[in-house]
Amino acid sequence: MLNVKTPEEVLNIIDCEFRELPGLRELLPLEQALGRVLAENIYAGEYVPDFDRSTVDGYALRARDTFGCSESIPAMLEQSGEILMGQAAGPELGEGCCRAVPTGGAVPAGADCVAMLEHTQDFGDGLIAVLKPVAPGENMIFRGDDVYPGKLLLKKGRVLTSRDIGALAAIGRPMVPVVKKLYVGVISTGDELVAPGEEPKAGQVRDVNGPMLSALLVAFGVRTVNYGIVPDDEEKLRQVLGSALEQCDAVLMSGGSSVGAKDAASRIIEDMGELLLHGIAIKPGKPTILGRIEGKPVVGLPGHPAAAWFVARVFVLPLLAKLMGRQQRSFTVTARLARSVSANHGRAQYQGVRLEKQGEKLIAWPIHSKSGLISDLAGADAYFCIDSDCEGMHEGAEIQLSVGDF
Amino acid sequence: MLNVKTPEEVLNIIDCEFRELPGLRELLPLEQALGRVLAENIYAGEYVPDFDRSTVDGYALRARDTFGCSESIPAMLEQSGEILMGQAAGPELGEGCCRAVPTGGAVPAGADCVAMLEHTQDFGDGLIAVLKPVAPGENMIFRGDDVYPGKLLLKKGRVLTSRDIGALAAIGRPMVPVVKKLYVGVISTGDELVAPGEEPKAGQVRDVNGPMLSALLVAFGVRTVNYGIVPDDEEKLRQVLGSALEQCDAVLMSGGSSVGAKDAASRIIEDMGELLLHGIAIKPGKPTILGRIEGKPVVGLPGHPAAAWFVARVFVLPLLAKLMGRQQRSFTVTARLARSVSANHGRAQYQGVRLEKQGEKLIAWPIHSKSGLISDLAGADAYFCIDSDCEGMHEGAEIQLSVGDF
Repeated sequence: MLNVKTPEEVLNIIDCEFRELPGLRELLPLEQALGRVLAENIYAGEYVPDFDRSTVDGYALRARDTFGCSESIPAMLEQSGEILMGQAAGPELGEGCCRAVPTGGAVPAGADCVAMLEHTQDFGDGLIAVLKPVAPGENMIFRGDDVYPGKLLLKKGRVLTSRDIGALAAIGRPMVPVVKKLYVGVISTGDELVAPGEEPKAGQVRDVNGPMLSALLVAFGVRTVNYGIVPDDEEKLRQVLGSALEQCDAVLMSGGSSVGAKDAASRIIEDMGELLLHGIAIKPGKPTILGRIEGKPVVGLPGHPAAAWFVARVFVLPLLAKLMGRQQRSFTVTARLARSVSANHGRAQYQGVRLEKQGEKLIAWPIHSKSGLISDLAGADAYFCIDSDCEGMHEGAEIQLSVGDF
Repeated sequence: MLNVKTPEEVLNIIDCEFRELPGLRELLPLEQALGRVLAENIYAGEYVPDFDRSTVDGYALRARDTFGCSESIPAMLEQSGEILMGQAAGPELGEGCCRAVPTGGAVPAGADCVAMLEHTQDFGDGLIAVLKPVAPGENMIFRGDDVYPGKLLLKKGRVLTSRDIGALAAIGRPMVPVVKKLYVGVISTGDELVAPGEEPKAGQVRDVNGPMLSALLVAFGVRTVNYGIVPDDEEKLRQVLGSALEQCDAVLMSGGSSVGAKDAASRIIEDMGELLLHGIAIKPGKPTILGRIEGKPVVGLPGHPAAAWFVARVFVLPLLAKLMGRQQRSFTVTARLARSVSANHGRAQYQGVRLEKQGEKLIAWPIHSKSGLISDLAGADAYFCIDSDCEGMHEGAEIQLSVGDF
């Protein structure tokens, strides 16, 4: 019998048994860093903005020169030049003077605020009337208001988004330290498998797990090496796994649904390394194996595609995240269950759903078929988990959906 | 004054004024189709499985041969061979006979169910005792139970996930019809801008919008053509926009924060085509322009990076989705607001947040700074929208977060 673990125990084993791989740092040009994992904390090295800056079109001036002014008694200031966009602010501004400045333009030394164009009037002959008092600091931001040297901008392990790319551009980081992509080997096993491009003969089916798991891994930001289809032959599997371990940081095997093959994978892992786990109390996905050979994780996934997908999504991705030092961020989306789902077997059950918007409400239709080979896969938008101590979920129940890689 | 539209009006203009581009279909190998937009409905062309299949290890047999049997009075059947994984099931099974079959193996004609190995006993001499009656159809799936010719598997416009790739593999689709990637031109305008790799001189800042918008577009699955930084020179901008329109399906311009530049973009669009929109009642992002030149959308985004990002995310991506025939699926995540946010200006307000998990609860910390140039961008995990008729959101309020491209 399998020594079956709960999902929590499995995640704990992953967390305790594996570590972030050393030496995975590489420098990439900013335009290639999107979606990559940040390899170190990013601190600003400079002030942003690096000069006092106007936030409006108007006149830079000294606030105290406008105290008490009004529309009927405007403050009359002498215009001392004009600041152009992208240019230095010019010499220090004297008392009783003002200088025209565009939004985003530099505010000169001496000035401590900007009067909005709308609250001024050009009297000609270099005289500007200010019709409303301006407070010190008004309508401007000061050097370093946004960012100052040493400020932590982005944390190690973050998956870089478009806005992070913007932030890195702003502080002048054309090269970004990111985590090198892992290589993960994918092996499909089974005498019954043929490649997706081939016509299956009697008793054969096409390999679904190879292309599907590769796609899941690629979407997660790793490189995959596809070792194709290996028949249920222990010696052959041992050879292919050996090659995969030489070339990759981790290896996924899937399949082996016949009795002998089921044992072969765990026997090989025990021979070549150590078995950390044999069986998870989930449905689908119970016959899952996790081991370590030469320090590298080797996962034996079930042959059933839906089972293989859930196990990869729920356990393999966190394992790879651990190796990469990638921060795991998983958020759930709330929806209403459109139809009751039964679950009554002492295992956590993962259930795929199709989503439908009804006004503001999100309705989740559980996907279910007798065999579930493709029907469980195609067109699902999300999934949820029914706890092992729960006998199912009723129609109308509020559920928490995972929508990653959907 | 700007003729300002509400966000709903803007989305309606986008929906009415633009159409799916014709001729964007291309065939890609399955392993390159992840994340691409499906160009047509995918119907199954065959049965899956294509043969009756066992779901257990056991013996294929005729159900009626086991009726009334028990542990004390087992049904004694003659073993007529063994079915191997991936092989044909062999000749039709005769009455009173059974044939060994592995999980996933083919069930022969004549048999209508499979007895589990655990409920049988091998008496030797080719005699198998079945200890428990088996119902017709038990422990097997029939040809086409999962998929049959003509079944709709995946809908046009869907962004292909790893499980969709699996489903396409299962039905033998090594080539997949997807929507060709759009080309979108990105132009940054402003005399004050320098490239991210350059040291800004007095009064200059680095171009944030170019790299940031390109990354957002790439994450959305389009190709970007970067036209670099164009100074606030109407003639120059007109030339660059003209080239971009020749090469691209849509063009984004951002910047132009000085008074003259603000008008230049809308003047150019009106000259070269038609202006559809000038100003959106949102914060940040009010000074947004949408036009059409030679049938192609041209968007003028604000220069402020956070404003440019929100407008691109909330309006430009749906516009591009429309051109691509991409199904828009946006789900929100529920969180609690950690700190009150004020909003009091008759405009819908987009607010970035950092997310923190406290046990099962998700806490959203609004990001706010005086200038917000980088602080609004770096490290945000999600955003939410405060309606224009709302004076803000209180600490502890339940909010609905958008987490796309985060």
